[in-house]
Amino acid sequence: MALSSSVEEKIIIRKAEDGDCEEIVRLIEELAEFEKMKDQVKITADILRKDCFGERPLCSCIVASKETDRSSLVGYCLYYPVYSTWEGASLYLEDVYVTPSHRLRGIGRLLWQNVAQAGLDMGCSRLNLAVLGWNKNAKDWYERLGCVDLTDKEDWHLMRLDRKGMESSVHKDKELI
Amino acid sequence: MALSSSVEEKIIIRKAEDGDCEEIVRLIEELAEFEKMKDQVKITADILRKDCFGERPLCSCIVASKETDRSSLVGYCLYYPVYSTWEGASLYLEDVYVTPSHRLRGIGRLLWQNVAQAGLDMGCSRLNLAVLGWNKNAKDWYERLGCVDLTDKEDWHLMRLDRKGMESSVHKDKELI
Repeated sequence: MALSSSVEEKIIIRKAEDGDCEEIVRLIEELAEFEKMKDQVKITADILRKDCFGERPLCSCIVASKETDRSSLVGYCLYYPVYSTWEGASLYLEDVYVTPSHRLRGIGRLLWQNVAQAGLDMGCSRLNLAVLGWNKNAKDWYERLGCVDLTDKEDWHLMRLDRKGMESSVHKDKELI
Repeated sequence: MALSSSVEEKIIIRKAEDGDCEEIVRLIEELAEFEKMKDQVKITADILRKDCFGERPLCSCIVASKETDRSSLVGYCLYYPVYSTWEGASLYLEDVYVTPSHRLRGIGRLLWQNVAQAGLDMGCSRLNLAVLGWNKNAKDWYERLGCVDLTDKEDWHLMRLDRKGMESSVHKDKELI
């Protein structure tokens, strides 16, 4: 993965290493702040390290770092395999993010290409993601890359149960619903 | 997993076995037909068997079968681990389905409880799923179980790139986007 963007300050795109987790969490928080949901971020570098690089990795991560200072990250993407009962193996892109000072240099595009390549290598039929409807720049960017908005097109809604809800689900009487 | 519903025709809830895949695919097609998207179903029993029971399982499946005829399925659910950069390990419920002739007996609820238990066992913070907005019965059911509609509440939109789009993403010139 030796892709690099053709900018004066050279940026390299590489697989994340476990020493990157503090920087990745810093960027995760930066993105969540932009999305106005920073209060939802509970992750820590140690949790991410275990989940990305532990015995049973739950996700994969590619980062954009300065060539002269590999430990300084300017972007990242995080993805993992998912499954469709209609089309089989698929990939889910949880985040792709480039810090504002380094945008419009093609770094996001290089991260995207690497994720698409990972999906092809894993034999995936689909690459899925979620975007905030009001984040028009991101939505337009995904659409220029060929993504279809399934919420608009087919009326899919994302739903979530939190851990308390899971506990209640298990403990409730087995009454009919 | 010896839960059973208290109905005259006894139904057992059990882990899927590889011999169940033909029946699961029959139910997947039945659900897709109800969702008016049967043309999108490309899965086969052999693909599902490899992906559920092969060397590297991509998903897990729990089924509802008749006790007197274990090979005859009346419902299923399929789920897999996903990841949140905000909250860590999570679970995604791809499908939960009970065939119309066996509804209102609590079978869906038993399937749901087993998925919630799997999520708790795996240390998950969230249980995510997607539902069609026009499928009011399903949406109401999930909400009664404690799920929050994040598309309505936070404006999340689901997006998808198909395999052709992934190929184009990789092959396009590395122009700036």
